[in-house]
Amino acid sequence: VADDQLTYQNQQIQRLRRLLGRRSARVDEGAFVIEGPGLIGEAVDGGWEFEAQYVAPGGEPIRGAGPVRYLADGVIERVATTEAPQPILAVAKVRSCELPAPAGFLVVADRLADPGNLGTILRSAEAAGAACVALTPGSVDPFNPKVIRASAGAVFHVPVVVASIEEVSAQGWRTIGTSSHLGEPYTELELSSPVAIVVGNEASGLADDAPVDGWIMIPHQGRSESLNVAMAATVICFDLARRGNNLGGQAANR
Amino acid sequence: VADDQLTYQNQQIQRLRRLLGRRSARVDEGAFVIEGPGLIGEAVDGGWEFEAQYVAPGGEPIRGAGPVRYLADGVIERVATTEAPQPILAVAKVRSCELPAPAGFLVVADRLADPGNLGTILRSAEAAGAACVALTPGSVDPFNPKVIRASAGAVFHVPVVVASIEEVSAQGWRTIGTSSHLGEPYTELELSSPVAIVVGNEASGLADDAPVDGWIMIPHQGRSESLNVAMAATVICFDLARRGNNLGGQAANR
Repeated sequence: VADDQLTYQNQQIQRLRRLLGRRSARVDEGAFVIEGPGLIGEAVDGGWEFEAQYVAPGGEPIRGAGPVRYLADGVIERVATTEAPQPILAVAKVRSCELPAPAGFLVVADRLADPGNLGTILRSAEAAGAACVALTPGSVDPFNPKVIRASAGAVFHVPVVVASIEEVSAQGWRTIGTSSHLGEPYTELELSSPVAIVVGNEASGLADDAPVDGWIMIPHQGRSESLNVAMAATVICFDLARRGNNLGGQAANR
Repeated sequence: VADDQLTYQNQQIQRLRRLLGRRSARVDEGAFVIEGPGLIGEAVDGGWEFEAQYVAPGGEPIRGAGPVRYLADGVIERVATTEAPQPILAVAKVRSCELPAPAGFLVVADRLADPGNLGTILRSAEAAGAACVALTPGSVDPFNPKVIRASAGAVFHVPVVVASIEEVSAQGWRTIGTSSHLGEPYTELELSSPVAIVVGNEASGLADDAPVDGWIMIPHQGRSESLNVAMAATVICFDLARRGNNLGGQAANR
C-alpha cells in the first residue's frame, strides 16, 4: 500500500460506510456519498458542494468533485453499495431547499418507502419540468444511494424539500391527490398551474382523508393493481408538461 | 421427508431449475415457471394452461394451476429466483399469439435487453389498453422470471408476439419510431389508430434507419438522458389511451 492510499481501517473510510448505510449519519453530518463518475458528474453539473473524492486504483479524479484522496486496492469493493463498483466515490454536502413560490407544478411524495420508486419519480419530475419534489416526513431519504442511482442523477437537478401536504398548501399551491378510486380522470380536470400533485405510499396509497383540494385518478383497462406509484407519477408529470403547466411552460414545443 | 414430497434431486425439480434459468429450455419445452401465488393467480385469471404446481411446506395449492406436487423442506429456496421465495411455483405452457389485425395501438420493443424494462412496458401497455406487445427477435424473453415479476402479471393479460418491425408493417399497422432526437414531439402528431409505437434497445436506441413510417420524440427539460425506454413507453401508451386510441377506446372515460 502506497503512503498516500487509504486502507479500510482509516477513519475516512469508516465514515464513507456510515454515510452510505445510515440515514441518521447523513442527517447528523449533513453529507452523503455519490458512487461512480456518471452520478458524481451530474452533481458537479448541478453545482453541488463536495467535501472530498475517493479514487480507487484505475479511477480518475473528477474536476469539481473536491480534494482527491486515494484508496488502497480492494477498499472500494468493501465500501460501495453496488456489486461491481466503479472506481470513485465522492462526499457531497446535503443541500437544503425551500418550497418554491407557486408556479408550474410540483410533486408531493407522501411517505414513499421504495428507493426505486422515489428515484423514478425524481427522474420523471425533473424531465417534465417540475418546480420541486416535496417529500413528507417519513419518506425514504433522497440521499439514499439506491435513490440517487434510480434517479439517474435527477436528484441533483430538481429541488427536493421535506414538507407536509399542509405546508405545501400553506405556501399557496393547489393540492391534488392521486387515487385508484377517488376523483375524476386526470384527463377531465383542468389542472392549471400552480398545482401540486400528491402521490401516496406504495402499500397504503394516499389516505382518503388526506388534506388535499381535489382528487384525480388514472383510468386504466382491466386489472385493479395495474399501475404503481412511479408509473402514475410519470404519466401525470408528462401530461402536465404536455399541457404547458410546467416551469418554463410549453416544454412540449421545445 | 414424507413419501409424497419431492426432494432436490428429483428430475422434476431439476427441470424447474432449467426452465427458470435457461431461455433455451423454455423454448425447447414450450413451458415456463411462475413464482408465487399472486403471479400464478394472474395467469389462472388470464386463462393460461398449467402443467403442474409445486407447493412447499406452508404453501397452499391454487385452484386452476394444475396437478399438485409437494416439495420437501428447503427445496424451493434452492430453485426459486428470489431471495425469500413464496411457497409455490407452477409450470405453465407457453402460449403463442398472432399479430392482431390493426385496431387501437400496439407497442413494438426492438431488441429490448433489460427484464425490468420489458416488465414495465408490458404493465403500461396492458393498463393503457394496448392490443399487443410485439418483441423483435433478439429481445429478452417475456417468460424470463424477472420479466414476469416486473410485469406484475401483465404478461398474462396482454398478447405478446415475436415479430419484426417489417412484419408489423406488413400486417397493416402504421409504425412510429420513438427517438431522443428524430421526429416531432408526440403531442404534435395525430397518432390515430391503428398505430404501432416502436421503442428501441436501452443502449443503442432504435436505429435511425429503422423501417418505420414516422418518428416521434418526447420533449423534456434539461439533461439529454433523462428518460429511459420504459418511462417513454409509459408516457406514450397513456397518451394514446387519453386520446381514445386504445382497444375499447375512451378508456379515459371509464
